[in-house]
Amino acid sequence: MTGTFVGVTRTIDGSSIARRIRAEVAERVAEAAAVRRVPGLATLLVGDDPASAVYVAAKRRAVREAGMRDVHRHLPEHSTEYEVASVIDELAGRSDVSGILLQLPLPPQLDAAALIDRIPVTKDVDGLTTASLGRLARGERGLRPCTPSGVIELLDAEGIELKGACVAVVGWGELVGRPLTHLLLRRGATVSVAHEFTADLAAVTRPADIVVVATGVRGLVGPEHVRPGATVIDVGIHRTPHGLAGDVRAAELDGIAGRITPVPGGVGPMTIAMLLVNTLRAAEWGAEAAPVPVC
Amino acid sequence: MTGTFVGVTRTIDGSSIARRIRAEVAERVAEAAAVRRVPGLATLLVGDDPASAVYVAAKRRAVREAGMRDVHRHLPEHSTEYEVASVIDELAGRSDVSGILLQLPLPPQLDAAALIDRIPVTKDVDGLTTASLGRLARGERGLRPCTPSGVIELLDAEGIELKGACVAVVGWGELVGRPLTHLLLRRGATVSVAHEFTADLAAVTRPADIVVVATGVRGLVGPEHVRPGATVIDVGIHRTPHGLAGDVRAAELDGIAGRITPVPGGVGPMTIAMLLVNTLRAAEWGAEAAPVPVC
Ligand SMILES: NC(=O)c1ccc[n+]([C@@H]2O[C@H](COP(=O)([O-])OP(=O)(O)OC[C@H]3O[C@@H](n4cnc5c(N)ncnc54)[C@H](O)[C@@H]3O)[C@@H](O)[C@H]2O)c1
Ligand SMILES: NC(=O)c1ccc[n+]([C@@H]2O[C@H](COP(=O)([O-])OP(=O)(O)OC[C@H]3O[C@@H](n4cnc5c(N)ncnc54)[C@H](O)[C@@H]3O)[C@@H](O)[C@H]2O)c1
Repeated sequence: MTGTFVGVTRTIDGSSIARRIRAEVAERVAEAAAVRRVPGLATLLVGDDPASAVYVAAKRRAVREAGMRDVHRHLPEHSTEYEVASVIDELAGRSDVSGILLQLPLPPQLDAAALIDRIPVTKDVDGLTTASLGRLARGERGLRPCTPSGVIELLDAEGIELKGACVAVVGWGELVGRPLTHLLLRRGATVSVAHEFTADLAAVTRPADIVVVATGVRGLVGPEHVRPGATVIDVGIHRTPHGLAGDVRAAELDGIAGRITPVPGGVGPMTIAMLLVNTLRAAEWGAEAAPVPVC
Repeated sequence: MTGTFVGVTRTIDGSSIARRIRAEVAERVAEAAAVRRVPGLATLLVGDDPASAVYVAAKRRAVREAGMRDVHRHLPEHSTEYEVASVIDELAGRSDVSGILLQLPLPPQLDAAALIDRIPVTKDVDGLTTASLGRLARGERGLRPCTPSGVIELLDAEGIELKGACVAVVGWGELVGRPLTHLLLRRGATVSVAHEFTADLAAVTRPADIVVVATGVRGLVGPEHVRPGATVIDVGIHRTPHGLAGDVRAAELDGIAGRITPVPGGVGPMTIAMLLVNTLRAAEWGAEAAPVPVC
């Protein structure tokens, strides 16, 4: 339930929620560093995609700002699967690397699914290996994909009750919609999932207390889809001549939505914050899993 | 879409659809037997639960009727985890065992999740290992849980279009609702999931073209939940003094539902049929995965 709607749309400040989470992570990292257990994230970039380079640079900066060890490997565009696999194996074996992030997309000659699955489940900070997704399906301990867990954190930070709430998830993609559906159901939400084959999108979204949009279709969702007072979470990111835009027509929802995430400054910053949280969790999990060191 | 509703509720004859599938499996088994590759199912029963014994006996009978090899192990109630694991490992190593079925529930001293995960993914005919669920999540080749794939087969056999259809799944359990939600979304259905925390069940189910009920709550769903003409699939099974009953009040839906599965004779027989289909698939997959025998 979104509470009584009073006609003013509240903007959910993802940047400041993300900042708070990152500060908490940095504190925990400092504690771990005091006992010489600095968590480390290894980023692995293959090729020269400029967008990927920007994303990886942002992640590395956040890692260093949190006080974690920043390990980075950059392989050439035409690397073979064997070469990439060897680097993953090397990183998997290092005790100072808590998490491994293989930046996607990979060049076309590489089997992305196979390479992702080479990352050990305890170091899978993106939560996209078959093993992590299986653990999610079974509700077992594991690392969850960053963007959907960022959405859950945002809703929690806003004090929005998920148990019993009606949530519409628009878009059932592998990175966002699919794992998010699972996380929401685990939290006791009633969930409806819409996608490109949905005949009547508004029929799915209008009854919902919370509408999450992750389709990659710019401006897909507007006032015709949203019950007055509902919370709208926009996961889409599109570069436009006028800056970043989302999958939601936010301006048209002003005064209609109860709360809404902006683009930029909504879900985006949460993704990096959750990557840091996952790296910290991986470090703790790895420390438990590993034999106790004899000093 | 369920078509024009004409006031007469059609009973979906799961028994006869299951019989046809089992006959098809038997034909394929006969072909495989001709080249000395008889598929085999190993059933593993731990303890003396009478219901489990009945289920296992029914599965073994179906296996033999399909011409497959029936391998069976019965371990005592107080078996240790090591003992059960050893038997699974032995069956996993046998080339004449294509599939392994660990009958659930297990006695309380055993870690069911860990033992299930000991079954190799290529022999996991119940589709419940972490690896199989991860493959389902990623849309990769793998064996799918029998009851939900039986539901999909029933709908296919009835010629009901799933792409674009609105489906309500009532119950999000590990065996049925959870994997079924996934299978339906893969097929392009728009899916709403309800469960015990859903505030208004009818609001979720009434818009649906197809309502699938798998809650374990006898008689939960009735005419107040179903749009006239909709298809109703009842997965529940309850033993009553008057015979088996389901999660749906079927008599009250007569003349309202467009089509309905009876209990017994609806989804139940499909579960065993799909176990045979999975064993056949496992045999084919195992044959590909194994090194080609030198005769
Ligand atoms: N904010 C972030 O940090 C972040 C992170 C990851 C992804 N994203 C964004 O989230 C979006 C989704 O990512 P993904 O990888 O899950 O996407 P995807 O491409 O794997 O899936 C897109 C989904 O949207 C559905 N869809 C397409 N057109 C539709 C329409 N007209 N109506 C309803 N549904 C439609 C598709 O059926 C599919 O289920 C993208 O825009 C991506 O840029 C943002
Ligand atoms: N026909 C078959 O061959 C076959 C096979 C397996 C299971 N089943 C039956 O399917 C049913 C479900 O099995 P499972 O293992 O997935 O169950 P489960 O116990 O794991 O899950 C039950 C689900 O139903 C939901 N639920 C409970 N009460 C509810 C209510 N009042 N309203 C809405 N939802 C409610 C719960 O929240 C949960 O999501 C059981 O009745 C079981 O006997 C039949």
